[in-house]
Parts: sequence; C-alpha cells; structure tokens
Amino acid sequence: MKSIFIILSISILSNFSIAQSKDSLFIRSIFTETLTNDDCYENLRYLCKQIGPRLSGSENAEKAVKYTELLMKEYGFDKVYLQEVKVPHWRRLNKATGEIRSGNKTSISVCALGGSIATPKKGIQAEVIEVKSFAELDSLGSSKVSGKIVFFNRAFDASHIETFAAYSGAVNQRGRGASMAAKYGAVACIVRSMSYTKDPYPHTGAMRYDAAFKKIPAAAVSTIDADVLSQKIKNPNTTLFLQFDCDTLEDKISYNVIGELKGSVNPEEIITVGGHLDSWDLAEGAHDDGAGCVQSIEVLRSLKVLKYKPKHTIRVVLFMNEENGLRGGLKYAEVAKQQKEVHLAAIESDAGGFTPRGFDIDADDQYVKKIQSWQNLLAPYGLYEISKGGSGADIGPLKGNVKALIGFRPDSQRYFDIHHSANDTFETVNKRELQMGAASMTALIYLIDQYGF
Amino acid sequence: MKSIFIILSISILSNFSIAQSKDSLFIRSIFTETLTNDDCYENLRYLCKQIGPRLSGSENAEKAVKYTELLMKEYGFDKVYLQEVKVPHWRRLNKATGEIRSGNKTSISVCALGGSIATPKKGIQAEVIEVKSFAELDSLGSSKVSGKIVFFNRAFDASHIETFAAYSGAVNQRGRGASMAAKYGAVACIVRSMSYTKDPYPHTGAMRYDAAFKKIPAAAVSTIDADVLSQKIKNPNTTLFLQFDCDTLEDKISYNVIGELKGSVNPEEIITVGGHLDSWDLAEGAHDDGAGCVQSIEVLRSLKVLKYKPKHTIRVVLFMNEENGLRGGLKYAEVAKQQKEVHLAAIESDAGGFTPRGFDIDADDQYVKKIQSWQNLLAPYGLYEISKGGSGADIGPLKGNVKALIGFRPDSQRYFDIHHSANDTFETVNKRELQMGAASMTALIYLIDQYGF
Repeated sequence: MKSIFIILSISILSNFSIAQSKDSLFIRSIFTETLTNDDCYENLRYLCKQIGPRLSGSENAEKAVKYTELLMKEYGFDKVYLQEVKVPHWRRLNKATGEIRSGNKTSISVCALGGSIATPKKGIQAEVIEVKSFAELDSLGSSKVSGKIVFFNRAFDASHIETFAAYSGAVNQRGRGASMAAKYGAVACIVRSMSYTKDPYPHTGAMRYDAAFKKIPAAAVSTIDADVLSQKIKNPNTTLFLQFDCDTLEDKISYNVIGELKGSVNPEEIITVGGHLDSWDLAEGAHDDGAGCVQSIEVLRSLKVLKYKPKHTIRVVLFMNEENGLRGGLKYAEVAKQQKEVHLAAIESDAGGFTPRGFDIDADDQYVKKIQSWQNLLAPYGLYEISKGGSGADIGPLKGNVKALIGFRPDSQRYFDIHHSANDTFETVNKRELQMGAASMTALIYLIDQYGF
Repeated sequence: MKSIFIILSISILSNFSIAQSKDSLFIRSIFTETLTNDDCYENLRYLCKQIGPRLSGSENAEKAVKYTELLMKEYGFDKVYLQEVKVPHWRRLNKATGEIRSGNKTSISVCALGGSIATPKKGIQAEVIEVKSFAELDSLGSSKVSGKIVFFNRAFDASHIETFAAYSGAVNQRGRGASMAAKYGAVACIVRSMSYTKDPYPHTGAMRYDAAFKKIPAAAVSTIDADVLSQKIKNPNTTLFLQFDCDTLEDKISYNVIGELKGSVNPEEIITVGGHLDSWDLAEGAHDDGAGCVQSIEVLRSLKVLKYKPKHTIRVVLFMNEENGLRGGLKYAEVAKQQKEVHLAAIESDAGGFTPRGFDIDADDQYVKKIQSWQNLLAPYGLYEISKGGSGADIGPLKGNVKALIGFRPDSQRYFDIHHSANDTFETVNKRELQMGAASMTALIYLIDQYGF
C-alpha cells in the first residue's frame, strides 16, 4: 500500500506540477506579448489625444464608441457589437468663475460639479460658511446657513494607506453636499476638491439632488484655493461670487461597446472584462477610465495573438456612463438577465492605469479561495493582494447573476492627483504600468477560463 | 503535563500576540506620522529646487552637504557630523552637439557620458557603425571599425518584469563601450540611452576607460534619436558629427553627511540607513537619489517625534559620490572597519521614490528568515517582496562587517523614464509614494532594533 500511495502521490504531484509549469509558462507568454507590443498604449493615446474628453451624451463619447468598435473589428474578434443604452446628457457650457470679494477680488479655481444646475446668468454672490461635516452643518441650522454659500472643506485624511479610503471619507460632501446645504436655505455650495495634492486644479465629479430640497448650484474648488478661501473668509466682510453655466438635456441614445472571443468548450459561459468608455469633461480621461478600456481590449488582443482557444466566451465590455448615471452597467446586467446569460466572472479595471497590486473579489468564499490558490502563479508579477472586497461600479449590477465580481487593483497612491481633473492626461500614464495591468487581468482570466469555477 | 503544556502555549502565544499588537500599533504610528507630515517632501523640494544637480566636486554638492548637515542639526539628532572623503571631479563644460550629416544636417539629442574625455574642440566627424553587442563588435574587427564612431544600439528588453533586469542587460554598452570600441581603432562611441521610453532626453551615467586602450569620447543619444540615427546610417554617405567639452580636475575634498539617534541599550551597535547625496548633472537628482536622502533623514525624524528610544544607534548616512566613484561608500566602510564599529544592518534607498514593494537582503539565511518572519507586520503597507538579493552600491563595501545589507525596493516600472536624464525632477516624485517609502524603511528599522539580530 505504501508504495502505491507514494506512486499515486508522485503522480498527483507531478500532474500538479506539470499544470503549474504549463500555466506559469503561458502566463509568462501573456506578459511578454503585452509588454513588447505598443497597441494598448497607442490605443490609449488615440482615445486621449484624437478623441479626448468623453462625457456621456457628448459628440466625443460617440466618437469613442465608433473608434473602439472599429478597433475590435480590426483585431478580428469573433463578434463585435453595440448595446444600446439611454444616457443622461449634462453639459458644462462655460469655464466657471470664482471670486473672493472683500474690497479687492481674488480669483479662485472652481468648476461646476457634474449634474449641477447653472448659477443665475449674472452669477451669485453671498457670504460663505465653512463646515467640515454634515453634523456641523446640522448644528448650525437655518439661522446660520440661510442665504449663504456653504463651503464643505473636509480634507482627505492623509493617514490612510489606501487612497480610496480617504476618498470614501470625503466624497459625501461632493455627492450630497448641495441638498444638505439647501435643506437649511443655502443659495449655493462649494466643495474642496477630492484630492490630497495641493494643486490649482478643481476636480469635478457627480453630485445628486435630493428631490425634497431646492436645487442649488454646486461647484468644486481646487485644494490650494480651498485653503485660500478658508483663510479669507475669516474677514467678516468677505463674500464669494460664483458664475457658471451648465444644463441637462434630454437623455440620449448611446452604446456599450462589446467584443468577444467565442468559447470552444462552453461558449454559453461568459467571462466579462471591462472598463468605462465615458469620462469627465475636464481632461482626457486617461486613467479614468481610458486605461481600463484599452487594457480590457488588450486582454482579448493578446490572447488572440497567442492563439489561445478559450474554453468559455471571453467578452470585453466598454461601459457607457459610469461617471454620471451607470446606465451602461445597469443595461448590461438587465440584458444578461433577460437573455439568461451565464457569467462565470466579471472583471473591471477602473482604478487607474497604475502598477498592479492585485484583485478584490466580491464572491462566495469558495471562489475567493480558488482565486487565492493561484497566488504563486501571480506573485512573480507583483500580484500579492488578492482578497475579498468590492469590485467595480459597472459590473456591480450583475451581482446575483455571476459567480465572481472582481476589481483589478493597481497601486492607488497617485490616483487622486489626477482623478476627475484637468490632470487626467495621457502623459500621466506610464506605458509599462498600463501594460502590466492589462497582462495581470489577462493572466487571471486565463486561470478562470482553465480552472474555474 | 498536558494542561501545563496548554498553559505554556497560551502564555507564549499571548506574549507573542501582545508583541505583535504592540509592534503593529507602533508601525501604524510610524506611517501616520510620516504620511501626515510634509517635511520629507519639502526637504526634497529644497534639495531639487534650491540646490539642484549635485555632481561630486561641484559647488552644488557642497551646498547639499551644508544644507543636510544643518537640517539634521535643526532636527536635534543626537550627533551630526561630516566624514571627509576625496571625490573625483569630472565636469561637463558645454551642451553637446550631435549632427547626422548626409547632404543635409539632422540634429540629434546627445550628451557626454560621465567620465568621458572631450571631443577635439572643432568636434569629430566620422562614419558610424552600429552594433548590438560586444560580440558583434569583435566579429567586425579593426578593418570595419577603425576610424569610425561605434554606435551601441542594443535596446532594453521590454519583456523583463523588473526594469533593473533590463538595465543590467544593456548597461555594459555605456560602462565599457568606449574602450571596447577603441580596441578596434574607433574614434568615438555613442550609446543608446538606458531607457525604455521613447523620448528626446539623453541619459548620462558613468563610463570607465580600460587603461589598455586609447581614450575616445563617449556620448549617449536619446532613444528617439537612436532610432533616427539607426535609420539614417543606412544611407552609405552618412557621417556623424559630435562636439562636446568636458574635463577631469584633481580630486576634491567632500563629505558623507552623518546623523545619529544614540542607542539606549547597545549604543555601540549600529543600524545604518542612507542614500547618496550626489546626483548626475543633467537634472535635479530627485529620484536618484534625493529621494533616498530625504527618506533616510525622515526615518530618524519620525522616530524622534514619536519619542522612540532605540536600543541600538540608528545612523543616517548621506553618501557622497555614488554616481561616479563610490568614494563615499568606500570611505564609510573603511572608517567603520578601522574603528571596529559593529553594524547590525545597513539599509539603502537608491531605486527611486516610488511606491514600496519590499526589501532585498544580502545576508546569511538566518537573517533573511528573521526579516521574512515580520512579513505579516509589513504586508498591510504593501511590503510583500522580502527576499534574498542585492542591496545597494554605497553600503556594499560594508560587506563582511555587517549582519545584513538591505536594499529598499520600490516599484521599478517608472525608474528608467527619468534615471540620469533631465527628467529626474521634483515634479516626477509623488509625495505619498515618497512618504510610504520612508515609513517602510522606518518600520523595518524599528523591527531590527527591537528583535534582531
């Protein structure tokens, strides 16, 4: 018995190590292909420099749809198609003006938040009241707030290691500040930009009005000028002047752009990988989320070039309207449900084109453990952080209809330097970091296709 | 017995977990202090913007010595002193000219390599012969090479994951190319810049002449212009014109700058942490290695602010002349040996101020394993890569007289975009990445001070 046991063990171990070796070789070939091919980076250059900002409903967003559809067709993916989706159509119509007035005038760098109404044409001028939290605002009440511009000035907490934790701790000011201020009769609100960095760029982003309260104009101010404003309003005869124009038109028809490599064994089982094609309007949407789009396309391109025959269908989805509506993600999940599609996994890259760290997995423990069992195959590429956690906004609506939702996690330290600001340009993306991210996703998709779930 | 064993186990485990908890709390306080204090980043700004390039022997190098000595004194370190060291004094005297001549003239972006002799005053003009390796040069021999400019054009291999591996695979062209070419009668040599990135910046760096062969002028050419040159010389009537002026003066007195927090239990046992204060002359030496210097100072500053009483002496050393001589590192090791100093560990940060990945350890296995046993305390900060490997140039000469040589390892993907070129500016350093690196080194030093070796 003993010798049979040993032989069996050797045989199991040796099959295991052959599989490991085959996998590690194929993963190595994925990285080699992606690191030595310029396409992913050059596609991002095109998206940023030839198209540019791609806010939902804009002409550029439609250009991006056409460009990426054509690109995937040129790559010869097995199927390339558009999925219609109605998107909100908010527009920024001028460059916002912000002026601190106290005898003299001090210009400050501001921008309308996405979804805000315009100020009156001639602008709005009022005293400013600074708060750090909604609780502080509540304690002030209408008597102190009514008729004023509320200035939400809670900065990022720099002690967090993960920058998204700092963002989470501050972003309610941007999202809900206007209605919280309107509740007490404020005439406008202005929010410190969601960034650590002391720079002159205002960072836009979505805000939502609570139907229970009056809509008031809402703007972001750069971190440098937030500090200036905080200082200047200590002088009691100080007011803030804000003027900006923006509007919301009727919803517009747009598209998710979808491409597929058809599965050779279980074509009806789908592994989805994606990013969002829309971006804010202040910059090129390079990290957010041009990077995620070109990386997702690269997953299929590299597998095709490597002549890999996937067992399951591997599908890239470029979602429309993540930034101010999530309509693309919602539509994708709705259609998947209607058509009774089977999703093994959905992976999203929407945290920037930075150097890879790992994956967050929103799934039952068994699937998390399965992915963690591949750790030794992924670690040579810097992928150590494979843990249970959140995934991505666009794939979120698939929940309940997919075994694993997975967020690709690049290093987060530089993300909020550029996020939603004029800084989010092609030049801030490092080619190799972008490529490493694409190859990391490809490696994980290969393993899921081979072994899971 | 069983119950005693259980009690003992619980007691050992509970002591262990109390120690773990104490350590994890203290390490958390290190990161909080470093991430919420601007000093490290602002000190780098001063070094880059108020002083600038700091090549050994230059006036700026001396300014940097004075500035950092004063800074450490102002921080109130227990002891701050200078360690005299004679350094080479090479100077770049003009901006190099490179012109491809074939009927018309095409300017290319070049710079003298550090240590090169000047071209003749009127420049040098010759046909170009391109090679990818010394073996190829050998196969051509004098008949093909004599009287020509040898162009070493082996690019970085993009398939490497670690960029330092690509650098290692190409850098002999820069270091030894001139003498290899002179051996066959070449009149000058020009080397493709040590970078992946296609950009217009030539990257300088040290080259050495082999005394057996004639000294010939040696320059680097930007990657973009290396491709241009490679293309143009296909036309047989093409020559290259090079003109640059540089010289080597007598060795000059300079200094390593040293500061200490005195040990409270074993003050005679030293843990050294450092970077190099000199930089190449084309930029501000921000990543290479201003970052390592301000991070090393930050280790002592943060421990002092946290009122930590080290058991052993913790010493920061800012080494002079890493780039073109290593005299500072050699002198430091020489003095340590003379004075019979006991070094527990020496840690160097000289791979850029990028997001931390881990540490490479050059030590006996027992010390490597000891450091690896702290993995769970370091992983929350992204420090997963703790392995046996190289350390740092400046601390290398201590080998044999120290238990562990340790290289701090930040992410390497962006390093060669900036290395030794005009791109190595303060603006390319991300504040949080720099701070995370400083705190990572502080955490490791804390653990060595508490438990090792």
